[in-house]
Amino acid sequence: MSGLRRVLVANRGEIATRIIRACHTAGIEAVAVYSDADERARWVRMADDAVHIGRSAARKSYLDVEALLKAARSTEVDAVHPGYGFLSESAEFARSIAEAGLVFIGPPASAIEQMGDKATARRTAESAEVPVVPGSGPVTELADAEKVAASVGYPMLVKAAAGGGGRGIRPVRNGAELAEVLPTAQAEAQSAFGDGTIYLERAVPGARHVEVQVLADDHGTVLHLYERDCSVQRRRQKLIEEAPAPALQESTREAITSAAVRLARHVGYRNAGTVEFLVDSEENFFFIEMNTRVQVEHPITEMITGVDIVAEQLRIAGGRALSITQDEVQRRGTAVELRINAEDPERDFTPTPGDIAEFELPGGPGVRIDTGMAQGDRISPFYDSLIAKLACWGADRDQAYARARQALEEFHVSGVSSTIDLHRQLTVAEDLRKGPVHVNWLEQWLGD
Amino acid sequence: MSGLRRVLVANRGEIATRIIRACHTAGIEAVAVYSDADERARWVRMADDAVHIGRSAARKSYLDVEALLKAARSTEVDAVHPGYGFLSESAEFARSIAEAGLVFIGPPASAIEQMGDKATARRTAESAEVPVVPGSGPVTELADAEKVAASVGYPMLVKAAAGGGGRGIRPVRNGAELAEVLPTAQAEAQSAFGDGTIYLERAVPGARHVEVQVLADDHGTVLHLYERDCSVQRRRQKLIEEAPAPALQESTREAITSAAVRLARHVGYRNAGTVEFLVDSEENFFFIEMNTRVQVEHPITEMITGVDIVAEQLRIAGGRALSITQDEVQRRGTAVELRINAEDPERDFTPTPGDIAEFELPGGPGVRIDTGMAQGDRISPFYDSLIAKLACWGADRDQAYARARQALEEFHVSGVSSTIDLHRQLTVAEDLRKGPVHVNWLEQWLGD
Repeated sequence: MSGLRRVLVANRGEIATRIIRACHTAGIEAVAVYSDADERARWVRMADDAVHIGRSAARKSYLDVEALLKAARSTEVDAVHPGYGFLSESAEFARSIAEAGLVFIGPPASAIEQMGDKATARRTAESAEVPVVPGSGPVTELADAEKVAASVGYPMLVKAAAGGGGRGIRPVRNGAELAEVLPTAQAEAQSAFGDGTIYLERAVPGARHVEVQVLADDHGTVLHLYERDCSVQRRRQKLIEEAPAPALQESTREAITSAAVRLARHVGYRNAGTVEFLVDSEENFFFIEMNTRVQVEHPITEMITGVDIVAEQLRIAGGRALSITQDEVQRRGTAVELRINAEDPERDFTPTPGDIAEFELPGGPGVRIDTGMAQGDRISPFYDSLIAKLACWGADRDQAYARARQALEEFHVSGVSSTIDLHRQLTVAEDLRKGPVHVNWLEQWLGD
Repeated sequence: MSGLRRVLVANRGEIATRIIRACHTAGIEAVAVYSDADERARWVRMADDAVHIGRSAARKSYLDVEALLKAARSTEVDAVHPGYGFLSESAEFARSIAEAGLVFIGPPASAIEQMGDKATARRTAESAEVPVVPGSGPVTELADAEKVAASVGYPMLVKAAAGGGGRGIRPVRNGAELAEVLPTAQAEAQSAFGDGTIYLERAVPGARHVEVQVLADDHGTVLHLYERDCSVQRRRQKLIEEAPAPALQESTREAITSAAVRLARHVGYRNAGTVEFLVDSEENFFFIEMNTRVQVEHPITEMITGVDIVAEQLRIAGGRALSITQDEVQRRGTAVELRINAEDPERDFTPTPGDIAEFELPGGPGVRIDTGMAQGDRISPFYDSLIAKLACWGADRDQAYARARQALEEFHVSGVSSTIDLHRQLTVAEDLRKGPVHVNWLEQWLGD
């Protein structure tokens, strides 16, 4: 196959906009889908065609495999891009697409499965000689969990094997907590993910979250686009991301990116993926999970490398070789992404859906905006609360943050609460300016 | 002096916005000025302070040296940035600023003078061993003009020595036209520029307009940031600019950038400047003029080099060394800038002032917007008709233009006519896609 002709964008919001842009730039038609709530959305207007797929609740539309397959068939696309979230990491969805004779723009279903079960993924990483946090395979009984604790040591994390993206994780500090948490965690995992399997990992205090972007094509190339630091998190949801990771030693960078490429090769990975690590204060790094899809924070990698990750996804899915080799990937400067969410940080980050009355965007050098919204559009209570991603590039870290602060001054949203003010405070915070910070820093800073 | 503290932005529109951003990013306060028409303008809102300087007509405000000096004194700035246009190339303004004990963010008045008289600038270029188009020094009498014609050959251009930026130029194809045009050109130059001095240059058919960005500090560094091709012009007004110049041989690039640096050094240049050349089909190049200020199209150079030109202007003016050396300047990819003007291309590009009712901006990878406008703002009949500059970067020329086409699809302005539709057509024009085109291409394409 020598390239795609027409792609179904099986997602919504800014990532739908992003994928449509990539399609058009590559000369590919893009078909949008929309729920009741999204009928007049910006990405629907941008697409060449659009199909209504159901009611506003995600499981009646964006999570409805049959509705999406029907949309794909009726619009005669040759491929489906799942975006992030929703069905993007569903092996079943990937398999259904393939069985319908269409191209799933992502890895093979087998790779999704291999990485989707986080307990299995740990073992896979070990067999690829990628270091993992000391921990266990699947654990059912408290007695087994206690044995693991004795060898691994507290504090530990109780994790759902079917979780990921920061969901299904509970910290335990001692045996009493373990005994209390284990059955609850199993029940929650069963209800949230349909799979009650639990495993254990040692907590790594003071660690940073560092993830490596990889790309792999059908022609034997597996390469990395360097790393991102996503340590500024609250309840495991990323708020600020930065590329490259600040103050990382070059030897660590070399080792961690090589490890990510090694793992991707080991599992026969294709398309774009992200290998996530914890990096401790001595720069030991440990695999935590692999996200088998495009990441929210991919723009900052694009800004430092000049590589269009979604365009490469389309190339790979169309059977073509990557447009660059590892040797041609060069990074320049620093980029930082700030997630502008319709949430009220003063009220525990409660989502504040509503209509965007005013929407004045920043611009100028090094400023990139990704949004699915336009003035007058509604932030729906049915979906995530992302209004826009603000990404700022600078020749160095100081310039990137200085530009981000200026862009935040210019960014004006009314009608809904937003995280803009919080970001104004965060981007002048001394700890962050000096960098790096660890994954618990934001919660401490917020006094959570 | 170790840096600036507070800068008066003696301009309006997008360049005022641009300068304020650069000031803030560098930790410098910015003071805006505004005429009656601009009272509630976007850049006025962005500045730390703002001063009303007079009536809407430019000569009662943005061209009023006394009003600007008064604004500078009353707000206690330590420097003045002239932007482009208005007083930016007035040696008198630069001198007044210096005499008031303030820093003029631009070259010394002597360099402005040396380059401001285009007949003198030609001779200066020659003495710096920079090739010029065959032509003359100042010419007054027809008999002398005819002697020049005999040695230089037709077609020629009759040029006002005090002109520049494409103004004050008339083509002549033969002796009869010369005899007719010379007195008119002299009279027009006198009335337009207050100086009737005329000189002659051979026309270079099929030439491209290629200009080199230079930066020079007080510490002996003079460097270039590569070149821009600005051949897509109508009546000598640029509509699309591209960096680097497409299909230019590396040996030509090396020679033309060296020539620009040599000229800047020769005249003791400081701050940012642009050396403009014609490049013929055999890649011979000829100096035409030097613009002693920041250029409208500077963003595309920033996009390919990662160097913030306005930030460097502030550093230089503050007595600091450039942040980069020539060896550190690396270019990556291609950037193209499209000028979105409030003009009606169907009616001879008549300006269409009015209120911007809707203003939906494109975004995503490689897209940069510079504008002084916001939704609801008025495009005033008193000033130029620029709504926004759309600059798009790509890893190669095809990707840059593909992104530009997508951005143009997304760009929505209502309330005034604009050049958006024209750009949609231009960016798919076969000649431009293949590139390069020559300076008369657009007029031919338009059927002017």
